[in-house]
Amino acid sequence: MREVFHQSLEDVQARLVEISELVTAAIDKATRAFGTSDVALAEEVIEADAIIDEKAVELDELAIQILARQQPVARDLRIVVAALRVSASLERMGDIAEHIAQLTRMRFPERAIPKGLKSTFTKMGELDVEVARTLTELLRTEDLSLLETLRALDDKLDDGHLSVFEKVLSDAWKGEAAATVDATLASRYLERFADHAVSVAKKVAYLATGDWKPDTETIAVIVAGGEIVD
Amino acid sequence: MREVFHQSLEDVQARLVEISELVTAAIDKATRAFGTSDVALAEEVIEADAIIDEKAVELDELAIQILARQQPVARDLRIVVAALRVSASLERMGDIAEHIAQLTRMRFPERAIPKGLKSTFTKMGELDVEVARTLTELLRTEDLSLLETLRALDDKLDDGHLSVFEKVLSDAWKGEAAATVDATLASRYLERFADHAVSVAKKVAYLATGDWKPDTETIAVIVAGGEIVD
Repeated sequence: MREVFHQSLEDVQARLVEISELVTAAIDKATRAFGTSDVALAEEVIEADAIIDEKAVELDELAIQILARQQPVARDLRIVVAALRVSASLERMGDIAEHIAQLTRMRFPERAIPKGLKSTFTKMGELDVEVARTLTELLRTEDLSLLETLRALDDKLDDGHLSVFEKVLSDAWKGEAAATVDATLASRYLERFADHAVSVAKKVAYLATGDWKPDTETIAVIVAGGEIVD
Repeated sequence: MREVFHQSLEDVQARLVEISELVTAAIDKATRAFGTSDVALAEEVIEADAIIDEKAVELDELAIQILARQQPVARDLRIVVAALRVSASLERMGDIAEHIAQLTRMRFPERAIPKGLKSTFTKMGELDVEVARTLTELLRTEDLSLLETLRALDDKLDDGHLSVFEKVLSDAWKGEAAATVDATLASRYLERFADHAVSVAKKVAYLATGDWKPDTETIAVIVAGGEIVD
């Protein structure tokens, strides 16, 4: 029984890594399609999002199955609960890649990236791909030092987001309203993507350390595998 | 023991209703502050968001505690898992109210609502307050007919979102880039708020019917409280 259980937990982890790889491919393609107005590549991302959604639902079903059958406690319980949250964040990251692809398709054959913002958005896209790769690595290895790498990438994306607004709001900005709308939405999506990744990484850190929210006695008791007296 | 357990589940529900009430107050104040450039009211929303976040974390801790101590199965298990997801969505809805309040504060003493969009944004704000009230009622009563009410409100908010873009992209639009950015972000926030509410309502429906995703055998087995054979 214990062996079956640990196989299930490994299965949970392997599925999270798999979904994270799909999200990495999605954001890579979506940001490249956005940069090059490649509508075929954008369509590919939009179509593939259903697969990410489906795999997230399957993972949730597995997690609920494990809770029902194996009734895990302590660290095992935390893994399963965190997996439910991580899958929700990964699914949302996939949605963001899809939104970026939709912006590309909506503007086609016009360029989706407004004039004057090409280098900023290219850089932000590359940062998001690095975010997704780092997150996948963190899920695979549980190497918590990668949380700091993700935070640093997230800071750079926040800087990029601010610089988009600075450009759009500067006197030099000659974009039409449509360009302003596109820049605003794209920048918001690219920045949110990294927020979700940091949120996932924090959940993995909680798994490893039991420190979901510092100084919470309840969690400490659960981590210790103990009973809580009312 | 069973009595203690059912008290815990009632506690979970009561806390979800409480958080939903706080979110309702937040979106009501945030949209009114946005409409009237009331920076004091906006500050109130920004400060109060920490309370919503804290209550969501406390609810998560309670849910994990219940899973660890009571090891619920079947419908009870589904209630606890759904509560974890609902609390995450409510917390996110609180964040959106905060973002709208931040837009108001950022523009003060200028008006946050761009010229020509006052009536659209007022209407969308009122719809979001109705969304939050309906959601609270659904959490309190588990009256699933309210899911349809929420879907109808969500459709109206999608229409509002589209009409904002139509205005901003029309020849008649004379707004500066800053006004276009504000309109884009505000409209996106107001529309997303309702998406989250529909997502919560679907989770409650899943609780009542076991129909998280139709035609999923695993869920059917769990609902029946049965064991799953590998």
